[in-house]
Amino acid sequence: MKMIHLLRQSIFIFFVFYSINTFAQNKKSINIADFGAEKDSLKDATGAVLNALEFCKANHVSKIMFPKGRYDFWPDHASEKYIFTSNNDASLKRISFLLDNFKNLEIDGGGSSFIFHGYVSPFVIEHSENISLHNFTIDWERTFSNEGKIISIQDSSITLSFSKEYPYKIKHGLLVFTDQDNNEYPYDNLLEFDPVKNETAFMASDYYLDGNQPATEISPGTVNIKIPNIKAAPGNVMVFSAAKRLCSGITVSDSRNLIFDSLTFYHCGGMGIVAQRSKDIVINNVKVTHNPAKARVLSLTADATHFVNCGGKLLIENSLFENQMDDATNIHGIYVQAEKKLSPSTLEVQLKHKQQWGFDFIKAGSKLELVHNTTLEMYDTLVVKSVKKINSEFTQVTFTKTLPAALVLGKDVLASIDDYPNVTIRNCVIQKNRARGLLIGSRGKVIIENNKFHTAGAAILFEGDGSYWFEQAGVRDVTIRNNTFGNCNYGVWGNAVIQVGSGIKEEYRNISRYNRNISIYNNTFIIFDPRLLHAYSVENLNFYHNKIAPSLFYVNKFPEGKPFDITDCSGVKIEGM
Amino acid sequence: MKMIHLLRQSIFIFFVFYSINTFAQNKKSINIADFGAEKDSLKDATGAVLNALEFCKANHVSKIMFPKGRYDFWPDHASEKYIFTSNNDASLKRISFLLDNFKNLEIDGGGSSFIFHGYVSPFVIEHSENISLHNFTIDWERTFSNEGKIISIQDSSITLSFSKEYPYKIKHGLLVFTDQDNNEYPYDNLLEFDPVKNETAFMASDYYLDGNQPATEISPGTVNIKIPNIKAAPGNVMVFSAAKRLCSGITVSDSRNLIFDSLTFYHCGGMGIVAQRSKDIVINNVKVTHNPAKARVLSLTADATHFVNCGGKLLIENSLFENQMDDATNIHGIYVQAEKKLSPSTLEVQLKHKQQWGFDFIKAGSKLELVHNTTLEMYDTLVVKSVKKINSEFTQVTFTKTLPAALVLGKDVLASIDDYPNVTIRNCVIQKNRARGLLIGSRGKVIIENNKFHTAGAAILFEGDGSYWFEQAGVRDVTIRNNTFGNCNYGVWGNAVIQVGSGIKEEYRNISRYNRNISIYNNTFIIFDPRLLHAYSVENLNFYHNKIAPSLFYVNKFPEGKPFDITDCSGVKIEGM
Repeated sequence: MKMIHLLRQSIFIFFVFYSINTFAQNKKSINIADFGAEKDSLKDATGAVLNALEFCKANHVSKIMFPKGRYDFWPDHASEKYIFTSNNDASLKRISFLLDNFKNLEIDGGGSSFIFHGYVSPFVIEHSENISLHNFTIDWERTFSNEGKIISIQDSSITLSFSKEYPYKIKHGLLVFTDQDNNEYPYDNLLEFDPVKNETAFMASDYYLDGNQPATEISPGTVNIKIPNIKAAPGNVMVFSAAKRLCSGITVSDSRNLIFDSLTFYHCGGMGIVAQRSKDIVINNVKVTHNPAKARVLSLTADATHFVNCGGKLLIENSLFENQMDDATNIHGIYVQAEKKLSPSTLEVQLKHKQQWGFDFIKAGSKLELVHNTTLEMYDTLVVKSVKKINSEFTQVTFTKTLPAALVLGKDVLASIDDYPNVTIRNCVIQKNRARGLLIGSRGKVIIENNKFHTAGAAILFEGDGSYWFEQAGVRDVTIRNNTFGNCNYGVWGNAVIQVGSGIKEEYRNISRYNRNISIYNNTFIIFDPRLLHAYSVENLNFYHNKIAPSLFYVNKFPEGKPFDITDCSGVKIEGM
Repeated sequence: MKMIHLLRQSIFIFFVFYSINTFAQNKKSINIADFGAEKDSLKDATGAVLNALEFCKANHVSKIMFPKGRYDFWPDHASEKYIFTSNNDASLKRISFLLDNFKNLEIDGGGSSFIFHGYVSPFVIEHSENISLHNFTIDWERTFSNEGKIISIQDSSITLSFSKEYPYKIKHGLLVFTDQDNNEYPYDNLLEFDPVKNETAFMASDYYLDGNQPATEISPGTVNIKIPNIKAAPGNVMVFSAAKRLCSGITVSDSRNLIFDSLTFYHCGGMGIVAQRSKDIVINNVKVTHNPAKARVLSLTADATHFVNCGGKLLIENSLFENQMDDATNIHGIYVQAEKKLSPSTLEVQLKHKQQWGFDFIKAGSKLELVHNTTLEMYDTLVVKSVKKINSEFTQVTFTKTLPAALVLGKDVLASIDDYPNVTIRNCVIQKNRARGLLIGSRGKVIIENNKFHTAGAAILFEGDGSYWFEQAGVRDVTIRNNTFGNCNYGVWGNAVIQVGSGIKEEYRNISRYNRNISIYNNTFIIFDPRLLHAYSVENLNFYHNKIAPSLFYVNKFPEGKPFDITDCSGVKIEGM
């Protein structure tokens, strides 16, 4: 009996295993070639993608496969939707892959190159679940940024040489970047890159510009541009950053269970991957880097990844984020400002930053924290009873209880406390980009381990403020271990390798403990200037068992800098130096 | 018995009459003051309007009354919607009065002034019926157009003086118009006005500009602007026309039974009233004119009224349309181009003109005409079986029968033949604007009577083309009687007082009879040059019993011009000269 029982059990287990395996192997899939996409044809693959997506939805097909090759995408026949994405610029977007209300879909690029043309957004995923994108490269035929080699610097002007990758015209005396379809590529920022080190130039500052700049063409491709007080080194590369973030690579809203695996982003007119109000996201083996086949110093025009009001699990591993125009990641919530009391329990709130307009996160049942924008510490919580949206900027919110007497209109801010992601970032290389490495603003459990950092600003920044960016942060449980910080902070976007707290004014720092429980151990810091850790308004900050190695890689411009600049904190332990 | 029966009947009739009358008098109305709007307070009345509209919808209230006064509207708290309006520029609009899915509502302004500030759209009416707007004035605090007094003309430059109504700055050497909120007011066209005659200058041409122009400030308010080959008379006024039509006064879509009565438009950043896919519209005692309290020569920045794919009754009477930047009215359909044959009965069609993108008029059951864009004459009709919209530009249409062999892809166009408005335009004054008076493209019954015209271009134009504007026209029954045409065609936008047909190339004119059955009688033509009637491709054109009086009001620049320049027509009767 026992024997038979065991045999039966084994057979049962075998069948269960066999069935699952067979199901996985036989899951319904389609080949994009059957929908009219011709690899390497340089024809627009947009229509084939639209038809394939519709077929998948209608027939519960769960996989689209691309035979390895080049596929091109233009905006003309792309899907269309007005998209508000936090920290990006809203617009009526043309979208190559629009996954709206999708369940269970894998797109396997098979190692293909997806080449985009003009103002088109590669992937938008909304109200979807169980979506995975695998094994393809994203690039643009003509980038949204422009790069000019510095020929010479004169008094308040700079002479640059542009390759044919960056067509331009001088219109009414101003430099305007164009393409063969007469699109224009506005810029609002100039940044110098060192093409030998392949990174932003040592201590280079942003030159913020107000639109197109006065310029004279000296010879075809060589232009002299008037910019007051410009300083830069001949031989370096000046990058004209795109004025708007209109075409991020993958934009995710209100979705869950997402896998982004083995993707390469050579360029985007915005971020690489941005997710909002979504949960359970895995990013594995994703590379943000400049295209080795092109002579570019820049990869993306904004952050590599960005997560706003996300929850569940957020895992980023085995990835490379380099040479993009902004941070490797930024994980935060959104504060709205309390503008007007409409009744004892009704408040009009405003999304203050224009790139946050349209970020709808307040629903009936939402739990919000109420925060003075001075200390950023929660002083009350409110549950939303009902919501009346006025427009993308203003919302009227009625709560289940009366508003507290402490409420300061026009100053206090509110944010969701319903969910925060548990973040793991491991085995990544983060380097050579403008600004910072990781901006960590989740109140979930955060582990940052086994990464290599070589960032121009702070490698890790704990930010959050209620006055300018209106990004909710304030960590509760962060472990930073086994990372190597190699010659970080060689630019102007930080004051230490790890930096905690930047949105609280000095007079309020000692009464706030906005960030809590940060442990930094078993890391290696290779430093060329002394500024290791800067922190204020932190409760429980532990720094121990770290190896600190001096370096001569850059000039030490801050010989008087403090290794540990820590004020207005409690529970600080600095050990093992 | 008979007596009693009669008495009973009388009592019954009395009661029915009494009830109706009482209902009409007691129809539920609200006062906007009860919703927080304070007249003459210069406070934003937007919130009060939103609350009043919501109250009306929820409580079946059918009238909103405004105590006479000034009410101001800013975009900040306005409703928001992405709006595609034909012949206008699509955008995410802030809207002061958004009537979406409304039934039975009257808004009585009580003689009030509604003053708008910045980029905001006064009225948008969608999917509504039985709506009437009465007795108010629309103006903007800062206009979308800019007017400069011509001080002097140099070789390829012009010196203008701007009043404080038109704030500007010189940015990187270019002239940029601004306001106190740092909005910019782009321009793309210059036109000279004669402030003494209060109209566009005699034979003045448009100077089309490509963005902001190089300029130097000579003294505060006085600017020298470089414009190649500019010609104009010192003392006249140069008007910088708004580059986009973003803020039309009243925009109507997919609605019916609309009354616009006793309204005055002093300014709009677009058209006065534009209606699309709507029917049964009455415009009575509507004035488009420049504000007498301001020193402006321009009223609106585009057409006074405009109707696209409308049906039912269209009555325009007792109205004044003057000094606006485009025609008094334009009534037409929309052609889409046949782009690609996807199956024997499926066609991909394209809205070719960017200001027509998003104009969705093809639905299952729609009847469309198929037209070669050479002759514009219907050669087949098709009934729509199903529609798949790709984006605002492309749509895939499946028909109930196979496509005809005669179909020419990339050339042929299609338009709706389901409905056309029966148009009456009477007792109106139409004068002093840029371009034409009436553009008549309806195949319904059209009567134009008892109007006074003094237009810079043709007073009445029958247009339509399938190659540039893609506006469907081709009249079937037009009566033009008892009008006075006083010194029309003093500008460059016409070649006769009445002009028929302009979109058909010469070689096709004799095989097309695109416009039919036009009778012109009992009118008075006061003319300073001989060009009275220009027509081609017309069947049945009758001109009789008209009075023609010569005038010396302007210089006759066309002494050799033909009074009747009529070619490629049949059934032409010219009498009573």
